[in-house]
Amino acid sequence: MLAAGSAYANDELIKMSKDAKQWVMPAGTYDNHRYSTLKQITAANVKNLQVAWTFSTGVLRGHEGQPLVIGDVMYLHTAFPNNVYALDLNNDGKILWTYKPTQDPSVIPVMCCDTVNRGLSYGDGKIFLHQADTTVVALDAKTGKVVWSVKNGDPSKGSTGTSAPFVMKDKVLVGISGGEFGVQCHVTAYDIKDGKQVWRAYSEGPDDQIKFDDKTMSLGKPVGKDSSISTWQGDQWKIGGGCTWGWMAFDPALNTVYYGSGNPSTWNPTQRPGDNKWSMTIFARDVDTGVAKWVYQMTPHDEWDYDGINEMILTDQTIGGQPRKLISHFDRNGLGYTLDRVTGELLVAEKFDPKVNWTTGVDMNKSSPTYGRPKVVDAYSTDKNGADHNTKGICPAALGSKDEQPAAYSPETQLFYVPTNHVCMDYEPFKVSYTAGQPYVGATLSMFPPAGDTNMGNFIAWDGKTGKIVWSDKEQFSVWSGALATAGNVVFYGTLEGYLKAVDAKTGKELYKFKTPSGIIGNVMTYEHKGKQYVAVLSGVGGWAGIGLAAGLTNPTDGLGAVGGYAALSNYTALGGQLTVFALP
Amino acid sequence: MLAAGSAYANDELIKMSKDAKQWVMPAGTYDNHRYSTLKQITAANVKNLQVAWTFSTGVLRGHEGQPLVIGDVMYLHTAFPNNVYALDLNNDGKILWTYKPTQDPSVIPVMCCDTVNRGLSYGDGKIFLHQADTTVVALDAKTGKVVWSVKNGDPSKGSTGTSAPFVMKDKVLVGISGGEFGVQCHVTAYDIKDGKQVWRAYSEGPDDQIKFDDKTMSLGKPVGKDSSISTWQGDQWKIGGGCTWGWMAFDPALNTVYYGSGNPSTWNPTQRPGDNKWSMTIFARDVDTGVAKWVYQMTPHDEWDYDGINEMILTDQTIGGQPRKLISHFDRNGLGYTLDRVTGELLVAEKFDPKVNWTTGVDMNKSSPTYGRPKVVDAYSTDKNGADHNTKGICPAALGSKDEQPAAYSPETQLFYVPTNHVCMDYEPFKVSYTAGQPYVGATLSMFPPAGDTNMGNFIAWDGKTGKIVWSDKEQFSVWSGALATAGNVVFYGTLEGYLKAVDAKTGKELYKFKTPSGIIGNVMTYEHKGKQYVAVLSGVGGWAGIGLAAGLTNPTDGLGAVGGYAALSNYTALGGQLTVFALP
Repeated sequence: MLAAGSAYANDELIKMSKDAKQWVMPAGTYDNHRYSTLKQITAANVKNLQVAWTFSTGVLRGHEGQPLVIGDVMYLHTAFPNNVYALDLNNDGKILWTYKPTQDPSVIPVMCCDTVNRGLSYGDGKIFLHQADTTVVALDAKTGKVVWSVKNGDPSKGSTGTSAPFVMKDKVLVGISGGEFGVQCHVTAYDIKDGKQVWRAYSEGPDDQIKFDDKTMSLGKPVGKDSSISTWQGDQWKIGGGCTWGWMAFDPALNTVYYGSGNPSTWNPTQRPGDNKWSMTIFARDVDTGVAKWVYQMTPHDEWDYDGINEMILTDQTIGGQPRKLISHFDRNGLGYTLDRVTGELLVAEKFDPKVNWTTGVDMNKSSPTYGRPKVVDAYSTDKNGADHNTKGICPAALGSKDEQPAAYSPETQLFYVPTNHVCMDYEPFKVSYTAGQPYVGATLSMFPPAGDTNMGNFIAWDGKTGKIVWSDKEQFSVWSGALATAGNVVFYGTLEGYLKAVDAKTGKELYKFKTPSGIIGNVMTYEHKGKQYVAVLSGVGGWAGIGLAAGLTNPTDGLGAVGGYAALSNYTALGGQLTVFALP
Repeated sequence: MLAAGSAYANDELIKMSKDAKQWVMPAGTYDNHRYSTLKQITAANVKNLQVAWTFSTGVLRGHEGQPLVIGDVMYLHTAFPNNVYALDLNNDGKILWTYKPTQDPSVIPVMCCDTVNRGLSYGDGKIFLHQADTTVVALDAKTGKVVWSVKNGDPSKGSTGTSAPFVMKDKVLVGISGGEFGVQCHVTAYDIKDGKQVWRAYSEGPDDQIKFDDKTMSLGKPVGKDSSISTWQGDQWKIGGGCTWGWMAFDPALNTVYYGSGNPSTWNPTQRPGDNKWSMTIFARDVDTGVAKWVYQMTPHDEWDYDGINEMILTDQTIGGQPRKLISHFDRNGLGYTLDRVTGELLVAEKFDPKVNWTTGVDMNKSSPTYGRPKVVDAYSTDKNGADHNTKGICPAALGSKDEQPAAYSPETQLFYVPTNHVCMDYEPFKVSYTAGQPYVGATLSMFPPAGDTNMGNFIAWDGKTGKIVWSDKEQFSVWSGALATAGNVVFYGTLEGYLKAVDAKTGKELYKFKTPSGIIGNVMTYEHKGKQYVAVLSGVGGWAGIGLAAGLTNPTDGLGAVGGYAALSNYTALGGQLTVFALP
């Protein structure tokens, strides 16, 4: 049924992604499970794990993302300047080729939250990279030579590239960053063969720009005409943010791409009345045309920078006796959502950190006029409290109960493994004027652990059918590393201090830890080579949580409040960009 | 007999250096053996070695030198800007304190051969660091607070600091770099308590500056008055080089410090007639007064940049039935020397790389007028061939058959383990004028392996009593890492590709290798903690051999010829500064 007889790049990719020896796209598979059927490494033997080989990327600052493994070759990216290495797995990572883009370093101060890059994609014999300067480049996977390149945005106006590209069918889909610079953000599909633009869909604006039609639904109803621009004052939507720098998912059978949009610009909510649609929204779009099938706005009229860009995880589970095609999403706003991915029906919305206090929960009453909206606690409404008022003790902080660090899902345990931030904030909006290419933030923040707690992170297991935490492991700092679940009943993640940890998938019991060279904000992956299972992760402290270390900032409210919150990190680790690869003896 | 009743810092140090659990000075012990009596790791079990923990220094470019271990704390330095970390061995290297000096980056282009630093010393409760800008700083070992600091030279005139300081008795002895900038180099002793200068001895100049007296000997004879300035044209000695950036040794019983001096400036020999004493010289000085007891010039009137700064290794061995107090030295010029360290008598001078061709050997006939001088082969005399003539195929290259990478000595096998360069060169001198603070090199070089060979390095075992190679292991690149010998019959070294290797001390058979994150130019050390033996080494490709990678140079003759010679390194590794610590499971 699916693309029968066609020669789409994703036919090859779907086949390759079923071969657990390889890791052919950012999350391993289109459903974003970050799950591997490899089980040489098990809960019983993971304690014997050893470092097999290592590789320095030659670049400091935060290293998000993960390597790819295609056949005998590992493809590795770096933080800015976004070098790419092809490493020979037959030879301890000997360098087969290197791609070193020349980028204007003036893009660095335009990057809100460190000079991160979330990795590469593969398809059609090419490796795709989304550079900081928004250049999307296709490299010949064999030689590293540039096949095509295209500009995805304009850094001089605040657009930057941090997200991975995603190959779906015969297209490369790319989001964009710039929510702190008032960019009108979008997702763009480029032709995999030559980089020609196929479609572009904005997060806010007129219907033709956002690619909504009369069949576009939200919470069971058509959204109707002008669903976005009617929720903005004047033409604020033109500088409205809603950026798209997260992890997209793809359901080939439904021909649908899923992703989330980020905060509305500015962070000062009093300046932009309205729901600011479709910021903070889950989008389900036809991958061929870009037209939206359904949308769901999680945080209308954001007052806390609770971007909705976190990964979309596609699962098939049974809820209430009914097998459902589901989409799960752990939002910055602290709520874990489960929806029907065919219809966009909202099934579950529950707090995945009990300390979340800005909302009492989502109105699940389908007949209510506020159906699907979070009920906001007045005391934590930075809009109600007004500009120049410092609203204290909001949980979570702006970087959310979870940020881009992707969760994993094991079909065996039917649990999600979620790296979380356990951090609150004080938030003071202030008036800000828009100037193209200049920061358009409009709020001063400070961050700290929830009252009574000292841990700033938890690694949790989550039942998406019921919206309940199954187990929770405390971590001193936010867990800013993506998780990996495996058929060996082991779940892996990294810590900001630099530990790679392995825990029991069923109980969360810590089974192994190893101190890598630098703090981990990369995502753990696994592959098999010559009969041996390997686990690999990029170290390189940084990202939003580590921006103080990464950029050498010391003023506590710098880094949008993260510098003070994570100051203690400098007692544990220093900058670096290194790959560590593990295996059993 | 030795310092009875005194409270010299080195009384404590001598005691501590006998405790193999610690590594209290750059080479472990004053005799520069880089040998440990620890033997938990043996030739039989080293194949099981694992990585125990790792630490990124947060700094790229070449990392020479080695950590110290004092009690439960590891002290670690970085390349420029010469940060210092105190790491808690009880807690996977948690950072106890960090010292981050502020240095003017204008010193970077004044450093000839990467922004390296060769490590720290300890004494009197203080950690000593010699910064790139020549600041010598004493840090409280418990807190990292600056106790005192002093300027050792003037970077604006070409002086830089790359060498480790050395604590001897109640003094800190510090050399200086700047041979490519016409610095009149010196060794200076500072008071360990307050940094006040105790004495300073230059390598060339009038007798009061070089601290020679009527008892100063060379090859069995007093050197007489004006032994230095009489060997220079005019006052060229004032810009004469003879720098002092190597590994000093100390014999407490003889109260003598041993070190070597570097090349005479400029590299164009036709510009500076004479023997250019005491460049290229082994110095034996009274540690209290700085007065020279004896000297031996290995390469009079250097024509190839064969600095004599390499480490001095003190051994007690029997030669010809006679127990002797010896000093051994593997010189850049390709000759391995053994002398009596009491008298300076020359006992052995043999090639430690058979491809050395600039000399047929040293005149060992004591009654010859050229006694102790190397016999120069005319075809490879860049002076005889003249300026603007490209003399081809000289072996070794300017970076020598060995550079600063220190050898190890095992008292058990009575063998030296020597990391070597197996590299030749073309050398074309040209006229150069001296301007203070500007490069004063005066030669264009290119480097390559010896004719018929593809390997650019060997790791060899050497019998210093006979001057013979016992075994030799080929390496693709120069072995620019310092060796470690242990009582476990294992010898360790690192490679420029990034491998830590363990070989059998008796046979050279490779027993273990592991690919660390970056190329290794650091020196392997070992310590014991909580009953477990650890082996540690800094990765971080760079140094002279890796300057192309480190500084991003691509012109083959850049880096004084190293860029072209070592271009293939970029197929194996990338920049990084990381510590890797190994142990048995």
